[in-house]
Amino acid sequence: MSDKEQLRMGIIGSNGRMGNVLISAIKQAGHLHMGGVDKDDDLDALASNCDILIDFSAPAALEDNLDIAMNHALPIIIGTTGLEERHHFLIDSAAQDIPIMQTGNTSMGVTMLAYLVEEAAAKLGDAWDIEIVEMHHRHKVDAPSGTAKLLGEAAAKGRGIKLSEHKDSGRDGITGTRKIGDIGFAALRGGSVAGDHDVIFAGDEELMTLSHRAENRMIFARGAVQAAYWLSRQKPGRYNMRDVLGL
Amino acid sequence: MSDKEQLRMGIIGSNGRMGNVLISAIKQAGHLHMGGVDKDDDLDALASNCDILIDFSAPAALEDNLDIAMNHALPIIIGTTGLEERHHFLIDSAAQDIPIMQTGNTSMGVTMLAYLVEEAAAKLGDAWDIEIVEMHHRHKVDAPSGTAKLLGEAAAKGRGIKLSEHKDSGRDGITGTRKIGDIGFAALRGGSVAGDHDVIFAGDEELMTLSHRAENRMIFARGAVQAAYWLSRQKPGRYNMRDVLGL
Amino acid sequence: MSDKEQLRMGIIGSNGRMGNVLISAIKQAGHLHMGGVDKDDDLDALASNCDILIDFSAPAALEDNLDIAMNHALPIIIGTTGLEERHHFLIDSAAQDIPIMQTGNTSMGVTMLAYLVEEAAAKLGDAWDIEIVEMHHRHKVDAPSGTAKLLGEAAAKGRGIKLSEHKDSGRDGITGTRKIGDIGFAALRGGSVAGDHDVIFAGDEELMTLSHRAENRMIFARGAVQAAYWLSRQKPGRYNMRDVLGL
Amino acid sequence: MSDKEQLRMGIIGSNGRMGNVLISAIKQAGHLHMGGVDKDDDLDALASNCDILIDFSAPAALEDNLDIAMNHALPIIIGTTGLEERHHFLIDSAAQDIPIMQTGNTSMGVTMLAYLVEEAAAKLGDAWDIEIVEMHHRHKVDAPSGTAKLLGEAAAKGRGIKLSEHKDSGRDGITGTRKIGDIGFAALRGGSVAGDHDVIFAGDEELMTLSHRAENRMIFARGAVQAAYWLSRQKPGRYNMRDVLGL
Repeated sequence: MSDKEQLRMGIIGSNGRMGNVLISAIKQAGHLHMGGVDKDDDLDALASNCDILIDFSAPAALEDNLDIAMNHALPIIIGTTGLEERHHFLIDSAAQDIPIMQTGNTSMGVTMLAYLVEEAAAKLGDAWDIEIVEMHHRHKVDAPSGTAKLLGEAAAKGRGIKLSEHKDSGRDGITGTRKIGDIGFAALRGGSVAGDHDVIFAGDEELMTLSHRAENRMIFARGAVQAAYWLSRQKPGRYNMRDVLGL
Repeated sequence: MSDKEQLRMGIIGSNGRMGNVLISAIKQAGHLHMGGVDKDDDLDALASNCDILIDFSAPAALEDNLDIAMNHALPIIIGTTGLEERHHFLIDSAAQDIPIMQTGNTSMGVTMLAYLVEEAAAKLGDAWDIEIVEMHHRHKVDAPSGTAKLLGEAAAKGRGIKLSEHKDSGRDGITGTRKIGDIGFAALRGGSVAGDHDVIFAGDEELMTLSHRAENRMIFARGAVQAAYWLSRQKPGRYNMRDVLGL
Repeated sequence: MSDKEQLRMGIIGSNGRMGNVLISAIKQAGHLHMGGVDKDDDLDALASNCDILIDFSAPAALEDNLDIAMNHALPIIIGTTGLEERHHFLIDSAAQDIPIMQTGNTSMGVTMLAYLVEEAAAKLGDAWDIEIVEMHHRHKVDAPSGTAKLLGEAAAKGRGIKLSEHKDSGRDGITGTRKIGDIGFAALRGGSVAGDHDVIFAGDEELMTLSHRAENRMIFARGAVQAAYWLSRQKPGRYNMRDVLGL
Repeated sequence: MSDKEQLRMGIIGSNGRMGNVLISAIKQAGHLHMGGVDKDDDLDALASNCDILIDFSAPAALEDNLDIAMNHALPIIIGTTGLEERHHFLIDSAAQDIPIMQTGNTSMGVTMLAYLVEEAAAKLGDAWDIEIVEMHHRHKVDAPSGTAKLLGEAAAKGRGIKLSEHKDSGRDGITGTRKIGDIGFAALRGGSVAGDHDVIFAGDEELMTLSHRAENRMIFARGAVQAAYWLSRQKPGRYNMRDVLGL
């Protein structure tokens, strides 16, 4: 990494689930961790020492975070989940001034997988039933996972349908035969699994399965840092993880 | 198979889903298929030409089938599904006179798997979360599969708990964290899959998965014929598939 | 299939491993099976009754087969394996007059998978190690399978390297650490498995696996018939399976 | 863990691959880490402060380690690999005075899996082909893994055969059809995989697969500590991991 530009990175939401792994990932990639802030801290001071910001905080903080990024003309990665329509408007607006990447999943592997799922769904047609099954640790409180939904959205986009109209989740009891065009979801929970996802395309007498396995949360941090480096070299605009891979 | 005793076998429920594959399996194993009957046919005549009967018909026919088997002193394999308590009483009673095997699944592999699941559940304890996921073709109308339930029962028996009190099927939405001791079920549907089953034991930072895959329905017929051969050499009594494997 | 044009199809190599399943697939798809020939039979007579030919015979017969197809101006699917460079010249030449599809694998799923593997290999770079593992029935005499090689070629093409220079097959004993850029192969044999293939992209702390499972040989016949229908509507030229899927 | 006896544990080979994770595992389990030694350090001093020793050092150190354990009447876990026949004699001899557990794999999951593999191999017979495939990180220098061999030994023991006479590893090229009774091995390498193992039983038209996945090296440390606690309450004798699980 010696011949790559070293960036000064700041973390917003540093006490959250991604804080510690982001610090490790920043250092492993040869960049500088300039510090992290949480809701009551002084982001403005941090921003003045950074080349780029990585935000894994909360939707409520988004507007302020974008303002400060714009004031300092800093690119910003937004990995915050639970965004609503108005947050996306704020992002679109800020993206006229600074480079912004907003994404629900910063893993390179998941990003690649979602692209492949979209391609396959587009070409194979609905003679191939699509099922998405994921497994996570025993502490996860919702199902299906955000990544499973992201993969379902990719499949639906490939097919040119709305996921909300074709989602079949939590099969149990007398279900009747499978509806053509449905996208099925199933959630497994147990142990300490960091995140397994399978997207199954089930055709007549053949199966194609596209899978991803995260060994731990580090991949999300590493991907965010990789994306940050990429974003620091872009013009103002709104980007997503696929752009980093050139998809 | 040349040096093995050749048996004359008769099928009850020969128009059902198992009829044709049973005929093939009987022939492949070097035995004689003496014919098949359905509800309006003459089982008594068939029985007089057979050494053993294989019943994949309906619960309503069970009492008559047992009577005829007893009259002819024939061993009988009962693969009929949907039996209720009173049917089991009838079987227990008839088993005083003839050898009977009743089973919900005639596959050797599934029988082995259920045994291994019971062993593992007994020894590993509930620090290992158990999840059962199955996949079947798009025409299946209920979930989870009968075999998934059979595997769940084996796990519950190993743990010394009642499955009905610890079953968690069809996870969807805000589920909360996983309850200790629960046995989870998930069902996938698609394509022409004959039957895949995974039983996952998820511990801290390690997973053990015990799986079975049926390539087609033939395995159930082959197992039934293998069981019939074994049963023909037993004394009166009630047996199950595990006995064939010496488990 | 009622509103689709019904084609008259002829099989070359009808006594081979694909003969019977091709007849079933032609009928299932609503087309007409006009007959099949083998090396000593009269292909010319068959061709005069057909709209398209499907050739799963032997390389030695290729030149004659192409001549007859050209004489009758018939499109031809060539699924024959073991072709050498001179056979490809013959095909290129004939493709100036008639539509020809030559392919080593007529499964739609495998075709899709190979495309996805090429895409992923091109974008992920060699920080992701590629491993290809296949399983086939106990009677298969060579390893790795032709389909595994086809998938390896797709991966190599995506990376812009030559497979022959980076193939690592049959790991055993003291191997040393894995070489960057290698594409690994492993072969499993057992039971009656029709064909499983996994292409694993192993990155730092994450895995992406792209898999295909054939339940039986029928998928190759069905894909060939689907390709035949598509080919019958094309101009003269040389095509491959990806064209059918619009890849 | 509050109501469990707290043990003072010492590590032999603390600079090796298991040193750090053992310290974590000892603390997580509520025991006391009294220190670690390597070849030039004073084990005698450490032993005088411990209730039990855990040895992951080298075969050359085994004799001294056993002597010191005997002098202090301490139970000892031996996870050292590469032991030869004479080392096993030393262990057998020392086990007359102190409780000793020697094992090639301290994971509870792998121990369970090996037991299930032995059971299945014993009951299913050689109509079910056995294949063992493992995947490890790109830095591993030998194949197949020690754990794969341990699983192969379990399968061979179940069948009542010698693994050395039936091992088929590194299939490549023209192999001929699979030999009845062989146990196949395949090794995959890539990324940072901590250790995946599949034991496949491939029958006619059905597959049973018994799998283990280690998320990281911590499971080996955790199992060693669990075994140490168990061993501390045993009489002198030689034990193995199966005893801890009551197998």
